[in-house]
Amino acid sequence: MSLGEIFLWELMGTAVLTLMGCGVVANVTLRKALGNNGGWLLVNFGWGFAVFAGASIAEPTGAHINPAVTLGLAVDGQVPWSQVPVYIVAQLIGGTLGGVLCWAAYKLQFDTHDDPEGTLGIFSTAPTVRNTTWNLVTEIIATFVLVLWIIQTPGSGRGDDGAFSFGNDALGYAAVAFIVIGLGASLGGPTGYAINPARDLGPRLAYALVPIRGKGPADWGYSWIPVAGPIIGGVLAGALALVLPAT
Amino acid sequence: MSLGEIFLWELMGTAVLTLMGCGVVANVTLRKALGNNGGWLLVNFGWGFAVFAGASIAEPTGAHINPAVTLGLAVDGQVPWSQVPVYIVAQLIGGTLGGVLCWAAYKLQFDTHDDPEGTLGIFSTAPTVRNTTWNLVTEIIATFVLVLWIIQTPGSGRGDDGAFSFGNDALGYAAVAFIVIGLGASLGGPTGYAINPARDLGPRLAYALVPIRGKGPADWGYSWIPVAGPIIGGVLAGALALVLPAT
Amino acid sequence: MSLGEIFLWELMGTAVLTLMGCGVVANVTLRKALGNNGGWLLVNFGWGFAVFAGASIAEPTGAHINPAVTLGLAVDGQVPWSQVPVYIVAQLIGGTLGGVLCWAAYKLQFDTHDDPEGTLGIFSTAPTVRNTTWNLVTEIIATFVLVLWIIQTPGSGRGDDGAFSFGNDALGYAAVAFIVIGLGASLGGPTGYAINPARDLGPRLAYALVPIRGKGPADWGYSWIPVAGPIIGGVLAGALALVLPAT
Amino acid sequence: MSLGEIFLWELMGTAVLTLMGCGVVANVTLRKALGNNGGWLLVNFGWGFAVFAGASIAEPTGAHINPAVTLGLAVDGQVPWSQVPVYIVAQLIGGTLGGVLCWAAYKLQFDTHDDPEGTLGIFSTAPTVRNTTWNLVTEIIATFVLVLWIIQTPGSGRGDDGAFSFGNDALGYAAVAFIVIGLGASLGGPTGYAINPARDLGPRLAYALVPIRGKGPADWGYSWIPVAGPIIGGVLAGALALVLPAT
Repeated sequence: MSLGEIFLWELMGTAVLTLMGCGVVANVTLRKALGNNGGWLLVNFGWGFAVFAGASIAEPTGAHINPAVTLGLAVDGQVPWSQVPVYIVAQLIGGTLGGVLCWAAYKLQFDTHDDPEGTLGIFSTAPTVRNTTWNLVTEIIATFVLVLWIIQTPGSGRGDDGAFSFGNDALGYAAVAFIVIGLGASLGGPTGYAINPARDLGPRLAYALVPIRGKGPADWGYSWIPVAGPIIGGVLAGALALVLPAT
Repeated sequence: MSLGEIFLWELMGTAVLTLMGCGVVANVTLRKALGNNGGWLLVNFGWGFAVFAGASIAEPTGAHINPAVTLGLAVDGQVPWSQVPVYIVAQLIGGTLGGVLCWAAYKLQFDTHDDPEGTLGIFSTAPTVRNTTWNLVTEIIATFVLVLWIIQTPGSGRGDDGAFSFGNDALGYAAVAFIVIGLGASLGGPTGYAINPARDLGPRLAYALVPIRGKGPADWGYSWIPVAGPIIGGVLAGALALVLPAT
Repeated sequence: MSLGEIFLWELMGTAVLTLMGCGVVANVTLRKALGNNGGWLLVNFGWGFAVFAGASIAEPTGAHINPAVTLGLAVDGQVPWSQVPVYIVAQLIGGTLGGVLCWAAYKLQFDTHDDPEGTLGIFSTAPTVRNTTWNLVTEIIATFVLVLWIIQTPGSGRGDDGAFSFGNDALGYAAVAFIVIGLGASLGGPTGYAINPARDLGPRLAYALVPIRGKGPADWGYSWIPVAGPIIGGVLAGALALVLPAT
Repeated sequence: MSLGEIFLWELMGTAVLTLMGCGVVANVTLRKALGNNGGWLLVNFGWGFAVFAGASIAEPTGAHINPAVTLGLAVDGQVPWSQVPVYIVAQLIGGTLGGVLCWAAYKLQFDTHDDPEGTLGIFSTAPTVRNTTWNLVTEIIATFVLVLWIIQTPGSGRGDDGAFSFGNDALGYAAVAFIVIGLGASLGGPTGYAINPARDLGPRLAYALVPIRGKGPADWGYSWIPVAGPIIGGVLAGALALVLPAT
C-alpha cells in the first residue's frame, strides 16, 4: 500500500464519515430539517452507518478513518509507524472536508435556523457537564472499548496484502457500524462520543471556516479533550492487546 | 442477460421499492394508519428495507432499481450503454406501478384522511426550503455518496455472469439498505432524499393518476430537481471511479 | 424430513414467533410494561426479530412458520402437497401456544391494565378502517411481497437435504427479519400486517382461552380476513414464480 | 482452552457487556445525558449491541458472558462441568467491573441527577409489578427462548478447537444482538429482562459499592429472582435440547 493510496482512501473515507455523521446531527438540530427532534437513536444510527459508509470506502487502507484506531493499531504492531502521520493528516483533512460538505447539504436549513449560535454541536462534540478529568475518562473508556473490539473481534485480522481489514464483502463493515451505534447509545450520553479526534477536530475547523450567519465560537478550549481522550483510549487498547494471549 | 430480463426484473424490483417506500410515508402521514407520527427513523428504516426488498428481487440484473445507479455504472464502464434505456424505462414504469399499489394498500386511509391536499409527500419528495441551486446540491451530494459507495465497497464487483452484483446470499443487499438508512438519517433532512429519479418521478405520476379525493397538485415545477440532482451525482461518482486506483 | 420433525420444528418456531410478536404489542399496549407507548418502529423490530428467532429454530424444516409461505412454496413446487397439512396444523397449534405464553409472561401487566376490553390487539390484528375488500387488498399485497421475496431472493434455494433454506449460519434468517420489519413499517399501517394466518388465528384462539378479567370479544367476524388475504397473496406469489424465468 | 483463558475472556466480555448495557440505561435515565428519555427501543439497541461487543471479545471461550448460557450448555453436554465455576466467577466479576466503569463514564451525570434514589434501575432490573411467581415466569420464559435459540440456531455449533462458537467473522455475534434486541422489545416489559444473572447481580454489587450521593438501597430482596429465573430457563432449554432430534 503506497502512502499516496493511504492518503487518498483515508481522506475520502473520513470525509464521507463526517459528511454523514454531522449530517444526522444537522437533521435533528435544524428547525427546517425533516428529521428535526428525531431523537438519540436516530443520531446513533446516523453516525453508525456513516462509519459503515466511510469505512467501506476506505477499505483498501484498512478503514481506520480515525487517528485513535491508527495509533492503537500502531502500538499493537499492525501498522508501521512510518505510515501513521500520513493516515492522521489524511483523516484530519477528510474530516474537515466532510464538515464543509455537510454545511453545503444543509445550507438552506442553516440560513433559516432560529438559533445559529447553537450550531457548533452539529459539527463537534461538547460535554453536558464540563469537567476536564471526567470528560476525558468518558472518552477514554468509550474509545478503549472501540479499539479493543476492533483488535479482538474475530475476522478483523490482516488481509492478504498486509492491510488490516474486516474482509472483502459489502457487509463486513456493518460490524463496525453496530459497535458505533452501541457505543453512542451506551456511552455517548456525557460527551457526545467523539471517540475519534478527526471526527471532532476536522468538523470544528470546518465550523470556523464556513459562512454561517450568527454562528457561535468554535470552543477551542474544549477541543483538546476529544483529541486526547480517544488517543489515550486507543493507545491503551493497543497496549493491552500486546499482552493478551493470541486467540 | 437479455433486454427482456432486464426489463422484467428492474420493473419488479423498482415496483417493490416504491410500494414499500411510499408505504412507510403513508404510514406516518395518514391519520388512520397505525404508524402515524412514527418519526423520521421509521421512515428511514422503511425506505432502507424497501431498497433491500426491491434490490434482492432485481438481483439477476444487478439490482440497480435507480437510473442514477445505472448511469453511474455506465459511465464507469460496468453497464453497456445499449442496455441503459431499457433499465431506465423499466425503473420508471416500476416506480409508477409501486406508487399505485401503495395507494391501493392505503385506500381506506386516504379516504378518511383529513388533509388530502398534503398527500403528495407520500409519493414524491419536496424540499423544506425551496431553492434550485441548493436543493440540487443536496441531492447531488447524497447520490454521489450512494453511487461511490456502490462502486467502491468491497464485494460489489461483477458476478460470474457479467452482471454487477452484491453476491448471492439473502443478506447481500442488506448492505445497500444500511447505506440508504444512513443517507436518509444524515442527508435526507433538506429535500427528503430522492437520490433516485425513478423513486420520485414514478410515484409522482402515480399521484397524478390515482383517484384521491381532494388531492393537491403534483408539483411538476419541482419534479426535475430530484431527477437532475441524482443523475448528476451518480454520473460524477462513476466518473470519479474511472480515475481512482484499482483496489 | 419426517412428518414428525415437520410438526415439531414448525410448532416450536411458530410458538416462539407469536410469543415474541404478541409480546412486543403487549409491551407497547399495557400501562405497566416498560415499553408502554414505545412506538411503531419498536413494534416492527419486535415482530421482525420474533420471525428471526422462530425461523432460526424452525430451520430444519425450511422455517416456514407461516401457512401463506407453505402454500406459496407448494404452488411453486418446492414443498410436497402431502406435507402441507402437517405444516399448517403445527403452525396453528404453535401460534396458539405462543399466544398463551405471551399472556403468562405479561400476566401481572394484564391484571393491572386499565383497559382490558382493548387487549385483543395484543394477540390479533384489526383494521383501522373496516372494509372487507380493501382490508383483503392490503393483506394480499403485503403477503405477496413477502412470499415473492422469499422465493426470488438470492440464497433462498433448496438445501442439500431438499428442504427450502436460507443457509446454515446464525445470521441467515436476519434477512427475513429485515423484510418483516420493512413490511411492517411500510404496509402495516392499515390492518396491522397479519401476513401470516397462524400469527393471527393462533393468538386469537389463545385470547379466547386465557383468563384475562374483563377482556373483550375475539372478533371472529374479522378473523377470516387475515387468513384469506395472506393465503391469496402467498399463492399468487407462488404462481407468479412458476412463470418467471430462472435466475 | 485453559481455565486462565476462560477467566480472562469471560471477565472482559462480561465487563464490556455491563459497561455498555448499564450505560444505555444511564443515558436514558439521567437528566444531563444526551439520550435522556430516549425510549425503550434505544434501550433495546444499547443492550443488544452491548452483547455484540462483549460476545465478540469473549469469542475465544465461546462468548457465554452469561451463567444461564454456561449452565444451559453444560446441561446439553457442550461445556465440561469442571469449567463451569470458572466461567461463572469470571462473569460475576466482569459484570461488577462493568457496572463500576459505567458509573465512571457517567460520574458527572450522576452528580447532577435530581433523583439519585431512583438510580438502581441503571444497574439492575426491577419488576413493574412485584410478584415472586410471575416475575420468575417472565424471566424463565425469556431466558428459555434465548438459550434454546443459541443451541438450535444454524451455525452455533462447536468450533475446531472444541469451543462453542458463532463462527469467526466480525458479524457472527450480530445474530445474538438481534435476539437480545428482540427479547428486550418483546419480553422485557414486565421485569426489565435480566435473562443473565451476571448482568443483574454484578452491577447490583457495583451499585452498592460506588459513591453515588443519595443513592437508594440495592434491593437485595428481589435480587435472587433475576438469578434464579434465568438459570431455570437456561437449564430447561439445555435439557430440552438433549431430547430434541439432531438437525
